[in-house]
Order: sequence, then structure tokens, then C-alpha cells
Amino acid sequence: MTEPAQTPEPPYFAVIFTSMRREQPGDGFAEADERLFALAQDQPGFLGYETADTDGLGITVSYWESETAIAAWKAVTEHRAAQDQGRARWFDSYQVRVARVERAYEFTRPTS
Amino acid sequence: MTEPAQTPEPPYFAVIFTSMRREQPGDGFAEADERLFALAQDQPGFLGYETADTDGLGITVSYWESETAIAAWKAVTEHRAAQDQGRARWFDSYQVRVARVERAYEFTRPTS
Repeated sequence: MTEPAQTPEPPYFAVIFTSMRREQPGDGFAEADERLFALAQDQPGFLGYETADTDGLGITVSYWESETAIAAWKAVTEHRAAQDQGRARWFDSYQVRVARVERAYEFTRPTS
Repeated sequence: MTEPAQTPEPPYFAVIFTSMRREQPGDGFAEADERLFALAQDQPGFLGYETADTDGLGITVSYWESETAIAAWKAVTEHRAAQDQGRARWFDSYQVRVARVERAYEFTRPTS
């Protein structure tokens, strides 16, 4: 999961999920995280996923073809259950930002 | 720096910077990262900054009032020098995505 996402030419959409994890998030957090990633990959319109975590601050960005795809993913039953668990047990706070990617560029080190 | 950003109501803009750091990024990386954060905070139109890193995959999201503010920040001399260093020494690859945040919502755990 710690790989950069490969996404097509813009426009597409990004969901920026920033979370502060509780010191003791309790059972099931890591497993749910893996499971959600697997589920998301099977969703229509899924383009990619990136996640990193430092000292309890997590940033997960998922990329989607459309707002419709994002809404469908948000409503998936197992994802909704995870959202409930997140509020009940895992996170002290989180923010979700839905954004339209307008332009993108990249750098790759030339092989020498 | 490992704090969630506090941003106003959308719309505003996000720059999603995803990087794969080299195994030996060399001197100056951590110092430059700190310095860039301090510089960015003083830029007109800067709204916030979030960063996390797992196993060399870094995700940094900065938030801005406008595309104009993003362009101005990209052109700051010291920032340009850091971009050059990033390509020369610090990163194997990176991606920059400029996105317009359309909507946002958040959760904060009630104090009990």
C-alpha cells in the first residue's frame, strides 16, 4: 500500500482523508484498513490510493473517476460500518475533503 | 507539523505532493522540509499543510486560497532551489496534483 498511485490525465477526483488516530485505537484497525483498500479497488471508477502515517496523523488519498463513484463508495455497506467504527473507536478526529484534480505533473529519476 | 490542517469552507485549492524518497536522500532533506514549511506559512493565500511518511512514501498536502497563490509559491526562489535539490538528490519520483476542494466535512470526538 505504500506506493504512489498511477492515475490518468486529469480531470478526476481525489478524496483526501486526514485522521488523528487515538493512542489506543483498539482491535481491528489495521485489518479494516487493509480490507477497505481491497474493497475500494473493486469499486467502479476507482483510480488509485495512497496512504502514509506519522505519529498518529494519517493521510489517505483515494482517486476516482467521478463524484458518482465517490458517492457509491461512501455508501458501500462495509465501508459505512468502518466509518461507524472509526467514529466510535479509532479516531479522535478526521477530515474528508473531496477535490477535483485539475492538473498534475510528475518526476521520475532517470535510470543511470 | 504532524497536525491536521484547519481550513475554511470550500472552495479552496489543494496541492497533493506524493514522493518516493531515495534510500539515501543525503544531507539537508529534513532541514529543507522544515524550512519549506516555515516559508509556505508566510506566503499569501496559504491555508494549511499536512504531511505524513511511511516507508519512504511521503504525502504532503498544502491548502491555498487560489491557483494564483499556488503559482506564486511554486516560483519562490528558495522553493525552486528545493525543487531542484529534490530532483537531483532526494526523490526517486514524485507527483504533484493541483485540485479544487469542492466540499469537506469533519468529525471530532466529543469530550466525555
